[in-house]
Amino acid sequence: MKAHVITIGDEILIGQTLNTNAAYIGEKLSNLQIDLTSTSVVGDNETAILDDLKRTFNSNDLVIITGGLGPTHDDVTRKCIVKFFETELVKNEDVLEDIRKLFKQRGRDVTKINEDQANVPKIAKIIRNGRGTAPGVWIEKDKKVFVAMPGVPYEMKSMMDDFVVPKLQSKMDGIKSVKKIKNLLTTGIPESHLYERLGNLDELLQDAKLAFLPNQFGVKLRITVHGDSEEEVGNRLTEIEQRIRSLVGRYIYGKDDETLEDVVARLLIDRGLSLSVAESCTGGLICHRLTNIAGSSSYFERGLVSYSNGAKVELLEVDEDMMHEFGAVSLEVARQMANGVKAASGTDLGISVTGIMGPTGATEDKPVGLVFIGICDDKMCTAKEFHFGDDRLLNKDRTSQAALEMLRRNLLGIPYDE
Amino acid sequence: MKAHVITIGDEILIGQTLNTNAAYIGEKLSNLQIDLTSTSVVGDNETAILDDLKRTFNSNDLVIITGGLGPTHDDVTRKCIVKFFETELVKNEDVLEDIRKLFKQRGRDVTKINEDQANVPKIAKIIRNGRGTAPGVWIEKDKKVFVAMPGVPYEMKSMMDDFVVPKLQSKMDGIKSVKKIKNLLTTGIPESHLYERLGNLDELLQDAKLAFLPNQFGVKLRITVHGDSEEEVGNRLTEIEQRIRSLVGRYIYGKDDETLEDVVARLLIDRGLSLSVAESCTGGLICHRLTNIAGSSSYFERGLVSYSNGAKVELLEVDEDMMHEFGAVSLEVARQMANGVKAASGTDLGISVTGIMGPTGATEDKPVGLVFIGICDDKMCTAKEFHFGDDRLLNKDRTSQAALEMLRRNLLGIPYDE
Repeated sequence: MKAHVITIGDEILIGQTLNTNAAYIGEKLSNLQIDLTSTSVVGDNETAILDDLKRTFNSNDLVIITGGLGPTHDDVTRKCIVKFFETELVKNEDVLEDIRKLFKQRGRDVTKINEDQANVPKIAKIIRNGRGTAPGVWIEKDKKVFVAMPGVPYEMKSMMDDFVVPKLQSKMDGIKSVKKIKNLLTTGIPESHLYERLGNLDELLQDAKLAFLPNQFGVKLRITVHGDSEEEVGNRLTEIEQRIRSLVGRYIYGKDDETLEDVVARLLIDRGLSLSVAESCTGGLICHRLTNIAGSSSYFERGLVSYSNGAKVELLEVDEDMMHEFGAVSLEVARQMANGVKAASGTDLGISVTGIMGPTGATEDKPVGLVFIGICDDKMCTAKEFHFGDDRLLNKDRTSQAALEMLRRNLLGIPYDE
Repeated sequence: MKAHVITIGDEILIGQTLNTNAAYIGEKLSNLQIDLTSTSVVGDNETAILDDLKRTFNSNDLVIITGGLGPTHDDVTRKCIVKFFETELVKNEDVLEDIRKLFKQRGRDVTKINEDQANVPKIAKIIRNGRGTAPGVWIEKDKKVFVAMPGVPYEMKSMMDDFVVPKLQSKMDGIKSVKKIKNLLTTGIPESHLYERLGNLDELLQDAKLAFLPNQFGVKLRITVHGDSEEEVGNRLTEIEQRIRSLVGRYIYGKDDETLEDVVARLLIDRGLSLSVAESCTGGLICHRLTNIAGSSSYFERGLVSYSNGAKVELLEVDEDMMHEFGAVSLEVARQMANGVKAASGTDLGISVTGIMGPTGATEDKPVGLVFIGICDDKMCTAKEFHFGDDRLLNKDRTSQAALEMLRRNLLGIPYDE
């Protein structure tokens, strides 16, 4: 199955918005073994959209288009679909109901231009939108498939996951070649060290492929295996994963789309433990990540964002004299913060961070990127020193990741050193 | 001048790498007033590249291609250029010198496949590469321009900045047309309501363009004006901006790349005011956003992520009986939380949020998406009810944005109720 993706929007052409939609769809099609041979971006322009649609629908089995389905004058995709497929617009009562419900939920009046979005191409199967007003469109013609979705990423993603991928999957059943991809997520070890510890890659992988994909949260190891049957490919993937785990297992916190907060949440729930957090330099990011998980109230009790020194003393009972002697960014303050938040909240565990995120705040002996992370449980109370980079936002991400990783190691009894 | 950009690479098609090169080039061309009408991505495949080159060179004045110029077997762009322009490869001594120098600098031997990169298309002007081994290529034919650059972003960017942009600039010098873009950032009003309030767009804009770009933080209004001179275009842009501001000004919190936390930080610093935050449902996100701003310690004193009811009572002196009567998610609790955090921290302002982010936690009369936001200053203490959607992470984003917007309105004396 050959596919093409068209993204519509001047904001992408002029570089104001990155084309994350095409990347998201590309990844999903790749997982489905569908061959995405090309993508294109065109502006909010009827002629340009129609031309690209004609060109690409002609030479592909699947064309997916995103963007230009909104309610305003610059959204012209629906008009292009009607022209291209020589169909007409008809009112869809389900969609109208969805739109009215959405506005009611938000306590707002429905406008005429939103109600007009319930007029959909007659020949289309409608993809309902749980997150916005524009419905998506699925059309089959001449054994080819055409899909249109809104450009708002979270609306597009939920349509893709809930409707388009399952429907394409059923079309791909019966096709023989099998590809499997697995991502192992590591943190706390640089790419080059990981590479060295894995040793001879040809021996490790045989004819599988391994990619190293680093970012501020760690290095993703992507394993790709091709073969003739589900079983064979699955077995080889498992074998390679086991060999990788035997070499660098302690750094692997999760797989595929998991986040470290997902993993930590599961561990805390399994063990029936509660947690509180004292954050200085990350300013709330650790609490934010922990509470991104549905049901986090079962283990997360409170977070104290003690940004000022006064807050550290008042809320966490950090010793004021000691803080003046060693500085707010110190091993001892981190330890006392973790202990203080655990004591104040009565939780099983307390974690803390204090550091210098930059660009300002460095002193002669304390550079930007210096961070101390503390952790206390019922048996011990400890802290550890870290050195990150120059960029404030990346440093916040890295610090939050290291703190959650210290927590994961504590819960699993894996030593943190090295 | 009409332009097209081709990006080459399987990793972009399957969504492993975002197409930042096309975005970078798009922004530069937009600044040069060159009309980038479309872009495309094709895989590392000779036939596909040649086809796309034929198609796009035919209908544009400028085609820029990035990627596929490396030394290995899967880099086929140079071969395609030779075929398409019916030319041949000749050795370029300057490029050979550059390559040898680069390897010497890194203390490595030059390989045969790297030396081969000094063989360049005969009809091309060479763009030397200070950061890697692959030279870029500039070809003029039939009054059209063709440019090829490596796909490594920092190599491409330096070629673009040092060679391609100045050369295109000199070609555009005689051309009169000027284009200016301005983004006005709104929040707290849906796209369709904004559209209605702006009334007759033809009258408002005349021949300027206006795009509505919504996401969970609000709607971006992008104004584009074309004209003959800098001054004329600047004046018309100012006029249109003023007219838009007169209609929906209270919803506009910033412009272009600003975030709401940038704007709020500036206002707090200007007024010398300090802030503390009590977060329940957003779980630290508001504090995280506020502390993303360098220097935030000058106005942000502390944040209390009072996730449990116990924490609300202990840290914020929320009245326990009242909370049992009205529930933790209520107008009165929001008001008391804002008041409590302001009192505990001794800041000039206190803000608070409490709500149900989903998917769980709803009750019969309190649905997912229900949020109360409180704000207290030295004169008053108030709270307001909001209704957001079903998605937990989007609800956290929306709630944090609404809280910061209430703060902005408070600081500017703009009433929050419409």
